[in-house]
Amino acid sequence: MIKTDILIIGAGPTGLFTVFEAGLLKLKCHLIDALPQPGGQCSEIYPKKPIYDIPAYPEILAGDLVDRLLEQIKPFEAGYTLGERAEELEKQEDGSFIVTTNKGTKHHASVVVIAGGLGSFEPRKPQLENISKYEDNGVSYIIKDPEVYRNKKVVIAGGGDSALDWSIYLADVASEVSLVHRRNEFRGALDSVEKASELAKLGKIKLFTEAQVAELHGENDLSGVVIKHNDDSKENAYLEVDSFIPLFGLSPKLGPLGNWGLEIQKNAIKVNNAKDYQTNIPGVFAIGDVNTYEGKLKLILSGFHEAAVMCQYAYQIINPNKRFVMKYTTVGGVEGFDGSKKEAKKEVVQSIL
Amino acid sequence: MIKTDILIIGAGPTGLFTVFEAGLLKLKCHLIDALPQPGGQCSEIYPKKPIYDIPAYPEILAGDLVDRLLEQIKPFEAGYTLGERAEELEKQEDGSFIVTTNKGTKHHASVVVIAGGLGSFEPRKPQLENISKYEDNGVSYIIKDPEVYRNKKVVIAGGGDSALDWSIYLADVASEVSLVHRRNEFRGALDSVEKASELAKLGKIKLFTEAQVAELHGENDLSGVVIKHNDDSKENAYLEVDSFIPLFGLSPKLGPLGNWGLEIQKNAIKVNNAKDYQTNIPGVFAIGDVNTYEGKLKLILSGFHEAAVMCQYAYQIINPNKRFVMKYTTVGGVEGFDGSKKEAKKEVVQSIL
Ligand SMILES: Cc1cc2nc3c(=O)[nH]c(=O)nc-3n(C[C@H](O)[C@H](O)[C@H](O)COP(=O)(O)OP(=O)(O)OC[C@H]3O[C@@H](n4cnc5c(N)ncnc54)[C@H](O)[C@@H]3O)c2cc1C
Ligand SMILES: Cc1cc2nc3c(=O)[nH]c(=O)nc-3n(C[C@H](O)[C@H](O)[C@H](O)COP(=O)(O)OP(=O)(O)OC[C@H]3O[C@@H](n4cnc5c(N)ncnc54)[C@H](O)[C@@H]3O)c2cc1C
Repeated sequence: MIKTDILIIGAGPTGLFTVFEAGLLKLKCHLIDALPQPGGQCSEIYPKKPIYDIPAYPEILAGDLVDRLLEQIKPFEAGYTLGERAEELEKQEDGSFIVTTNKGTKHHASVVVIAGGLGSFEPRKPQLENISKYEDNGVSYIIKDPEVYRNKKVVIAGGGDSALDWSIYLADVASEVSLVHRRNEFRGALDSVEKASELAKLGKIKLFTEAQVAELHGENDLSGVVIKHNDDSKENAYLEVDSFIPLFGLSPKLGPLGNWGLEIQKNAIKVNNAKDYQTNIPGVFAIGDVNTYEGKLKLILSGFHEAAVMCQYAYQIINPNKRFVMKYTTVGGVEGFDGSKKEAKKEVVQSIL
Repeated sequence: MIKTDILIIGAGPTGLFTVFEAGLLKLKCHLIDALPQPGGQCSEIYPKKPIYDIPAYPEILAGDLVDRLLEQIKPFEAGYTLGERAEELEKQEDGSFIVTTNKGTKHHASVVVIAGGLGSFEPRKPQLENISKYEDNGVSYIIKDPEVYRNKKVVIAGGGDSALDWSIYLADVASEVSLVHRRNEFRGALDSVEKASELAKLGKIKLFTEAQVAELHGENDLSGVVIKHNDDSKENAYLEVDSFIPLFGLSPKLGPLGNWGLEIQKNAIKVNNAKDYQTNIPGVFAIGDVNTYEGKLKLILSGFHEAAVMCQYAYQIINPNKRFVMKYTTVGGVEGFDGSKKEAKKEVVQSIL
């Protein structure tokens, strides 16, 4: 059982910044995210695109924003359960919570903060009847650790940035990379398309366009796939493979959170924005894109402010008899759980001459 | 008469970021501030100190924060009335407002946003009976344009960073700089104290410690001051001077805003934080440190979020019959009033090979 003060569901920008605000109050956090990496929409959907409305950043790439947040929260040593979906919420008699993921990992916390954005990102799966049989036995929808594919034969399907970028990356890692796409045209950043093109010319990526993976074969583990061309007159190809990775994009689904007894409005969780961003379940807060209230703006900066306010109330739940006096970071500094301390240079008091 | 869509009282971080959020909605802003420079507390009180809790900035100097905000809002060409205090608010029949400053400058706007922080910064003045006679005729409490002192004889009073830094700066500009301080010890950044010390040794700053300016002389304009030592046995000094600049710090005062019929609570303006941050006067909003509501955090990031939400409602007042559909900056880009346009690189759709 993982134990923490504040359990955060969702490691998007809102969840990440919550670690910082909680840390200032000396509260420990643990994050769960269905994705293999932190950053939410910023990392998954548009890491290489610029955002222009983060205060005091005239321009910042979404991926860089996540990196800066990770740097900022580092002193507070958050725990992570990545690549797992929070599935079940149970309130304990003492008011605390146990949250269990789809893989059975259990977390115990005094306060639960849902920072789930548009929902947990779930892969769009190809329509292949026996595909579930091979999930985790040769078929994966997200790449957690590319080293798994070293010297393996890999088939990637898809026509967007993920399919392009992973084909390029794995060209140097796997023994064979095939890229299968329904159409002739790929949609992605110019340099990704160009790089993939180059590797295809060099034969380092085998390209199948206007085609799709139509059959999966293998006793227990996947051992081969059949590739069918859109043009029926062309003959099917059979490829021996170790791994099939369909990268058709992830789409967010509110999913299990929808069954936790939370008040849902417009596919989001209703909160008390006049005060603390608490939901109808005392001790469960919802911040960032996942919540709703009159005038809600689904912007990154909203989650930042909501996190700061919410943490003050979480503190009161966790320390019912203490009073916390907020100090400016400029004045009080930032003390990490790792023993680090940042603080402004003190003024000197000294005579001249 | 200065005309604008949104008149912002206070050019602190909150007021500045409002220009950006309003600009995204194609609304023009004008700012009034009692200080000669934008940035509010960040510029006036702690420009050289690091802040650690601006989201995605593990550390940023307050002065740099203001610079980044100014860079971010540049495309939206805000107007400024600096060094003047907003004194009077008059609601017009058509629902718009006229705001007049202590110097008589008039501003007309559909919406007024008070981002006045802890109040307008007012100088702490020394207790000298005839000092008001010389205000603007030799006595100033803030330095707007140091060139005014070129080749002049200047007396600065004070023992903090402002007194030190301006003495250092003017040592190269004025023909004579005297620095008068009640005590022996100065309180400031180490390098300021050291630099002032050096200049004093070189005779480029005349130092009077454990002393104060006790009398002001001059027919119409200031022409001389009497410096009295704490130690009565020491003889008074008479200095011929053109300017006397007491830099005893500025302290914020809610001031005139207190008489505008706004609902005041804990020395701040009560707003509807459940919705739009509007005050009890329709069309007048209050955001940032100047407002109050349950759970309010007087942090820079609060003002940022409040500004974004508030601008959506200001838009509805200014354009009652239009509907604005919010677009992410990443998707819609940022179009400045100066004709500039920033936008994310478009994806390419192209075949490989
Ligand atoms: C193309 C695009 C451009 C954008 N441009 C801008 C912009 O310019 N400015 C701006 O402010 N905003 C922009 N946004 C919106 C911005 O990305 C979101 O407001 C922001 O990501 C919300 O952050 P969050 O942390 O609340 O949620 P998210 O970033 O959505 O993160 C939520 C995380 O929670 C996880 N999660 C959810 N449920 C579960 C569960 N049950 N178990 C485990 N994990 C779960 C998800 O996997 C996800 O990683 C843009 C969005 C898109 C798609
Ligand atoms: C030493 C110190 C350290 C701090 N550290 C932090 C920190 O680490 N993190 C953090 O988030 N915050 C910190 N703060 C607080 C932060 O500075 C404020 O939250 C922030 O400045 C509020 O911004 P604002 O724009 O709302 O108001 P302000 O910065 O106060 O600006 C308001 C402006 O309005 C002007 N004004 C007011 N009334 C009038 C009028 N009638 N006419 C004309 N002008 C007027 C004032 O002159 C002023 O310039 C710190 C503050 C101090 C003093």
